[in-house]
Amino acid sequence: MRKILVIGIGAGDPEQLTLEAVRAIAEVDVFFVLDKGAAKRDLLGLRQEILRRHPTKPGHRVVELRDPDRDRTAPAYVDAVDEWRRRRAELLRVLLRDEVPEDGRGAFLVWGDPALYDSTLGVIEEMLADGTVEFDYAVIPGVSSVATLAARHRIGLNRVGRPFQVTTGRLLAEGWPSGVDDLVVMLDAHCTFGQVTEPDVEIYWGAYLGTADEILVAGPLAEVAAKIVEVRRAARERKGWIMDTYLLRRRAPRME
Amino acid sequence: MRKILVIGIGAGDPEQLTLEAVRAIAEVDVFFVLDKGAAKRDLLGLRQEILRRHPTKPGHRVVELRDPDRDRTAPAYVDAVDEWRRRRAELLRVLLRDEVPEDGRGAFLVWGDPALYDSTLGVIEEMLADGTVEFDYAVIPGVSSVATLAARHRIGLNRVGRPFQVTTGRLLAEGWPSGVDDLVVMLDAHCTFGQVTEPDVEIYWGAYLGTADEILVAGPLAEVAAKIVEVRRAARERKGWIMDTYLLRRRAPRME
Repeated sequence: MRKILVIGIGAGDPEQLTLEAVRAIAEVDVFFVLDKGAAKRDLLGLRQEILRRHPTKPGHRVVELRDPDRDRTAPAYVDAVDEWRRRRAELLRVLLRDEVPEDGRGAFLVWGDPALYDSTLGVIEEMLADGTVEFDYAVIPGVSSVATLAARHRIGLNRVGRPFQVTTGRLLAEGWPSGVDDLVVMLDAHCTFGQVTEPDVEIYWGAYLGTADEILVAGPLAEVAAKIVEVRRAARERKGWIMDTYLLRRRAPRME
Repeated sequence: MRKILVIGIGAGDPEQLTLEAVRAIAEVDVFFVLDKGAAKRDLLGLRQEILRRHPTKPGHRVVELRDPDRDRTAPAYVDAVDEWRRRRAELLRVLLRDEVPEDGRGAFLVWGDPALYDSTLGVIEEMLADGTVEFDYAVIPGVSSVATLAARHRIGLNRVGRPFQVTTGRLLAEGWPSGVDDLVVMLDAHCTFGQVTEPDVEIYWGAYLGTADEILVAGPLAEVAAKIVEVRRAARERKGWIMDTYLLRRRAPRME
């Protein structure tokens, strides 16, 4: 039976690849590449670098998927994602059947970790949903951008005995969630941290984590928010795209 | 100047080591080992296996730290952790000075990722706090047990556009936190999932993740909770220790 591997490749540094991922990559017949738009060239570059550095199966191929950009402005965000996922799954079913040998292996090289705000697993479930194509699949976990953010700032994501929440810029815009003092924010294209007005919040921000372009800024939110907005704008202009994430940490009284 | 590396080594599979970690390990003079109690032998075994498989610096040493168990039953949990951290920092200052050459490297091999419910970074800050010993330090991120849990169950930690929370068994005992439908629970020695009475919750549970002893159970919480309690009890009895984590997922209406 065909097998699909969903391989986490780390936040951007090819050295963040695990030994397990290196070994898995060596047995792949077809790599599916899904990136789109402005970031595509650089993201593709990292994957090519990874394939160049490590053993690959003779005759392996890299197949790029062309599909239209997801409508990120649609008010029904979840519906837009669902629709995009369905179309993507349809394309991939055809590719899997046509490109991967019947006992062969296809793979997705996923930035960071496949469990964190990534659509690949959803697309795979969608591929299986209509029953027209059979395959097995497995996930190889990777170093996430969140773990890399924490490592670079040399901080823990949680404080002792306390919870933390991982959320999106869109949700943060609705207000600071109750019950947590530590918030990891992903997918924030709008510098939503700038809307957080409460005092005594620290921010630990990072962009292009793990790459040569990595940028880090940390400090009291009120003092560094404007700087991050400017640094982010300039970097995005220079490279044509940006991937960033951050931790907001309230200097809260300890709850015991 | 002396340098300390805090190296994430993955959830338990030596193959989860990153290439960056492999490279860093090769330059370490002294590895500090902090594990205690029943799990010690097995945890130490993984680290020895890692050092056996990869290049190490000639003459490197492994130094075990002996310190009393933390009082996990103390009502003032945070204070108990603080006190334990202070004592540990004191011991490590001495070891660093006595065991690591002045331009040498010490390292901690941390299970999973150093940013997730791990005390090493707190101990290092404590080591620096009294100003009596100078050193630089860096963190190398790793594959977390949480990423491994998700990978084995082939699930995402978040759902599309939704947040998730990482919390502890102790906090879950106080009730399901508001505002999230997806909860990762760590450090739960008391099967607190058994106290969750609300309907329509799925659990994805895993123990000894990434090791040959790995156990996975998933299903509707109401149906599998008792099974997990029993499986966990038997495994703990057999091995003398257990490390487990789980995701609770509410089949909630989507919020848009």
